Amino acid sequence: MDVVPPEEGWETDPFNLVEKDGKLYGRGAVDNKGPMMCWINAIEAYQATKTELPVNIKFIIEGMHEVGSEGLGRLMLTKKKTFLKDIDFVCINDTSWAGMKKPSVSYGTRGLLYFSVSVEGLSKDLHSGEYGGAVVEPLADLIFLMNSLQDHNGRIQVPRIHDDVLQVTPEEERVYKSVTLDVEEMRREVGANKLAHKEDKVRLLMHRWRFPSISYHGIEGAYSGPGGKSIIPAKVVGKFSVRLVQHMQTERATMKITEHLEKAFKLRKSPNRLDIQVLTSTSPWSENPMTPHYTAARKAIKHAYQIEPDLVREGSTLPICNLMHEMTEGKSILLLPLATRADGVHASNEKMDLKRYILGVKVIAGYIYELSLV
Amino acid sequence: MDVVPPEEGWETDPFNLVEKDGKLYGRGAVDNKGPMMCWINAIEAYQATKTELPVNIKFIIEGMHEVGSEGLGRLMLTKKKTFLKDIDFVCINDTSWAGMKKPSVSYGTRGLLYFSVSVEGLSKDLHSGEYGGAVVEPLADLIFLMNSLQDHNGRIQVPRIHDDVLQVTPEEERVYKSVTLDVEEMRREVGANKLAHKEDKVRLLMHRWRFPSISYHGIEGAYSGPGGKSIIPAKVVGKFSVRLVQHMQTERATMKITEHLEKAFKLRKSPNRLDIQVLTSTSPWSENPMTPHYTAARKAIKHAYQIEPDLVREGSTLPICNLMHEMTEGKSILLLPLATRADGVHASNEKMDLKRYILGVKVIAGYIYELSLV
Repeated sequence: MDVVPPEEGWETDPFNLVEKDGKLYGRGAVDNKGPMMCWINAIEAYQATKTELPVNIKFIIEGMHEVGSEGLGRLMLTKKKTFLKDIDFVCINDTSWAGMKKPSVSYGTRGLLYFSVSVEGLSKDLHSGEYGGAVVEPLADLIFLMNSLQDHNGRIQVPRIHDDVLQVTPEEERVYKSVTLDVEEMRREVGANKLAHKEDKVRLLMHRWRFPSISYHGIEGAYSGPGGKSIIPAKVVGKFSVRLVQHMQTERATMKITEHLEKAFKLRKSPNRLDIQVLTSTSPWSENPMTPHYTAARKAIKHAYQIEPDLVREGSTLPICNLMHEMTEGKSILLLPLATRADGVHASNEKMDLKRYILGVKVIAGYIYELSLV
Repeated sequence: MDVVPPEEGWETDPFNLVEKDGKLYGRGAVDNKGPMMCWINAIEAYQATKTELPVNIKFIIEGMHEVGSEGLGRLMLTKKKTFLKDIDFVCINDTSWAGMKKPSVSYGTRGLLYFSVSVEGLSKDLHSGEYGGAVVEPLADLIFLMNSLQDHNGRIQVPRIHDDVLQVTPEEERVYKSVTLDVEEMRREVGANKLAHKEDKVRLLMHRWRFPSISYHGIEGAYSGPGGKSIIPAKVVGKFSVRLVQHMQTERATMKITEHLEKAFKLRKSPNRLDIQVLTSTSPWSENPMTPHYTAARKAIKHAYQIEPDLVREGSTLPICNLMHEMTEGKSILLLPLATRADGVHASNEKMDLKRYILGVKVIAGYIYELSLV
């Protein structure tokens, strides 16, 4: 169910659940079999104690998330007026806590525009000794275009791209201040000398969750091996992506980025051919977290953990949020993670802490109960 | 002898010489067995006609050129005062005619600085959804650095890098004007919409032979496959090279380029680590072509082809020229190509035109004769 292939480095059989030192090891233990089992176990607990379930529950268990959820949208569209009718609340369990030590509930994801920009100018790779200086190199054009997208501080330089990004309100500033983030822990986790934005907690969180960001992924068609090779690549394809935030629209952002690149390319007067493709286009999603639905989830977490969870967003993109928003015509959705990133999502020796597994069952049981009071 | 492995696409057995349609097919036919055989055959012709060889000839036949000529320099150093003593003229046959239709003699090669510039900032590749906006991306730094090296016209932007490049003299301008270059043929050959420098013949030739140029080869460590992958690469290594021309010195140019990159990197205030390596450092080589040695070669070509050859340079780098210059303490060296690029150096179905092979023997026989008159 919804797992990636096990790579090297497993100390146990990835497809046999092994309990060791209070942890449950196995591929999918935390992403996403464990959290799914929390639901099943919670319902079993209601049944075992002969307590009637106080709300109706419908499951959508997606086994193809890791391979792009192909067909899910089409399937759900056919069920919109039957199985998906009359849904009041949506709960998704496919994320992790924002930090390592404190539970969290997420009310937003960023959107994604993944660009594939090709510059082509020669019919074959050339030798740079023989032709260097005589041809306009596609890779020089591409590096210029990619560099033009960002300034020294990582701020996107596409004109008017920030137009739709909301101003930070004092209230929002307060919420971000209250979120637990161990900056030093995060810095160690990624192995950086220093994180961005002077390691200011609020700015770091905002740049992960509520400001757009650009990431460069790589270049296809150029020399990518070790050592040196004296080629002028004939055709190169740059890969970069822009994460969109609340109120940014995919079509509008795509247009602005495309226009910027075309204008920059024109400036160079290059004889090469530019082709801009968008490989993925997903809208951002966000929800008002100041609702009874979110309060129910937070209460449930407090029942289990005796601690108030953080209200957070996700930096990444979850198309299922947009899909559920559309299918339920805007019903409240929340992301209710039951474990931490440290449990090794997609990594070898993926595990779910037994304690957190049991507390996860309690969170879900409490969530079901609290929802019935809404 | 001195060949690269045969790739796909051979219509004959690459290691059996096959004569077909007036051409000799086989791996190494033109690079470099054929030209080597021209020498052997020319000497055989002297012997067969019972004509004493009018000059002494020593051969250096290098079988490891295609794998970096490892050890050649050290070997020659040990022979400098014995085998390599008393050499008057050096002739190298490892290049091709500048154009397709007219013979040429080369009196210069460009030098090469091949850079490998790494930017490292994370202990592992990160997911751009989760961390985009929160870390300073090594690939963003690298793209900025690479882009800073060049302007829209391909001119190198490293301060004072052009200081050592000689001004073009009217005499030189005249020589370049006289060189045969079919610009349209070259444009078709590389498959470009348009070549650099507005396709002006003289400027094109000068930018291939007597001005430095920069070429971007690629990036190691970034995503280079097809489609999209949402990674922030932890460590990336940019590969680019600068071709040096007459009077530019490798150490000085390396220093200027390194200083420029370090300064640009500092400007960004990036927390990442920059490491600049030079993988190859070879000086340019050039010779005065207005000497009896060059006149002898040109006369020999005219004997065989009934046409005055072009006096040209090479855009690429041949370390053997520098090595021979050093070993002979500055004796005159010339590059005497016997065939064209169209013969498929390093490609499948490499061949040498039978007619050009026989004319090559005549060129060498004539060169030997003309040298004896110098």
